Amino acid sequence: MASSKSKILIIGITGNLGLEIAKASINASHPTFGLVRASAFSDPNKLHKIQFLLDSGVTLLKRFFPSEFGADPDRTQVSDIDNNFYARKAEIRRLIEAEGIPHTYICCNFFMTVLLPSLVQPGRITPPTDKAIVFGDGNVKGVFVKQSDVAAFTISAVDDPRTLNRTIYLRPPGNVLSVNELIEIWERKIGKNLERIYVTEEELLKKIQERPYPYNWELLFIYSAFVKGDHTYFDIDSSLEGSRLYPHIKYTTVSEYLDTLL
Amino acid sequence: MASSKSKILIIGITGNLGLEIAKASINASHPTFGLVRASAFSDPNKLHKIQFLLDSGVTLLKRFFPSEFGADPDRTQVSDIDNNFYARKAEIRRLIEAEGIPHTYICCNFFMTVLLPSLVQPGRITPPTDKAIVFGDGNVKGVFVKQSDVAAFTISAVDDPRTLNRTIYLRPPGNVLSVNELIEIWERKIGKNLERIYVTEEELLKKIQERPYPYNWELLFIYSAFVKGDHTYFDIDSSLEGSRLYPHIKYTTVSEYLDTLL
Repeated sequence: MASSKSKILIIGITGNLGLEIAKASINASHPTFGLVRASAFSDPNKLHKIQFLLDSGVTLLKRFFPSEFGADPDRTQVSDIDNNFYARKAEIRRLIEAEGIPHTYICCNFFMTVLLPSLVQPGRITPPTDKAIVFGDGNVKGVFVKQSDVAAFTISAVDDPRTLNRTIYLRPPGNVLSVNELIEIWERKIGKNLERIYVTEEELLKKIQERPYPYNWELLFIYSAFVKGDHTYFDIDSSLEGSRLYPHIKYTTVSEYLDTLL
Repeated sequence: MASSKSKILIIGITGNLGLEIAKASINASHPTFGLVRASAFSDPNKLHKIQFLLDSGVTLLKRFFPSEFGADPDRTQVSDIDNNFYARKAEIRRLIEAEGIPHTYICCNFFMTVLLPSLVQPGRITPPTDKAIVFGDGNVKGVFVKQSDVAAFTISAVDDPRTLNRTIYLRPPGNVLSVNELIEIWERKIGKNLERIYVTEEELLKKIQERPYPYNWELLFIYSAFVKGDHTYFDIDSSLEGSRLYPHIKYTTVSEYLDTLL
């Protein structure tokens, strides 16, 4: 049919049909890849299949990184108002674990292009010039990481045995800041003070409930990160923090990012 | 960390973070693969990303075959008693379609190693020797295909433009048979007639409801295929029948399979 043979990826390649499809794919000279569960390597009934697949030139993929790329869905504290946003991610984790699929979870917290350009001012995409809204007391710290840095940390983890079946948190120094600290950094950069308008947790919750999901997503994520502290309220194993694991990665700090907005 | 670089497959490689992860993967010299939605090729905002990825040596995978491998979940008529077995498969189809993911659905119906070795006698794994139970009138036809043949048809479809975003049905001649026909074939092979014990649809349904799912799965699948006719009650586009599409595949017929049981 086609002049070149497609690559074939078989999820569950040591299953009954998976192995048959692998054989058919090999016989038809397709470059063949398979995802294998960790448990297969200690299962006597699977080992000869794995050996056969390797002998046949099949490339076995060994680790799955679910596309979470936000806060830790097992730690967030907004399940009553987030329309199951995090519960669905947690459900995928439970499936991965139940199936014994080798994995790494990356908790990168906020992308820098979201909320940071406005200094956490909902409805804005540029920094405030006169007045800044502060939700809660403004002292709860959230985390921002540039997307390309998230990608660099993620790719570094791929072949790293330290991160197999573990959760990695990105909390790089210079990127963990409260809204009060963000505003202070910005004030120093522009040489001008901003008026702070404080909004209480109760007022914020009321606004969240007044708008249907997903139109309230900015307020919801602000509440989660900067009122409830979902990025930072819990301690982590610091040896599994991204910038500690991969000190060679030159990531962009929040201050450096804010310089690009001047 | 590791001496050799893992292959990286990125689902959603033209997304914002997907593209960043692709860049990080390329920069780290990982062999990089991506799954691309069909719609991306006609989206001006995506085309330059696709070109960049191809120029960077990324292999783009173009088609997804969900692991259904049974009856057509959009056609089965047992949704009131199947514990959402088929509804979950149909839901995955709807997600694939809504996301514009290029796909092929393979409806292979029954694997030969399931139900056929007993001539559709629940609770048995070998053919009956004296008496055979027949559910309903015994004239409704089901389909059996050997797993390795399912695999061969599937792999043949991978690079075939005729099967892009289509449903393929396997109804190979010699493999579409009623229970009465199965028993007759077997009687000729063993040179002996079996006593038929007919069980009505109502009695079968009662048995299905008496046992909790999944312990009633044999009865449920027998009801679906050989009473409701879920493999064959509807007409298909015969040009999309597997053995017509790929006449070079020498599949095992039911009669040939039964010979192995003598």
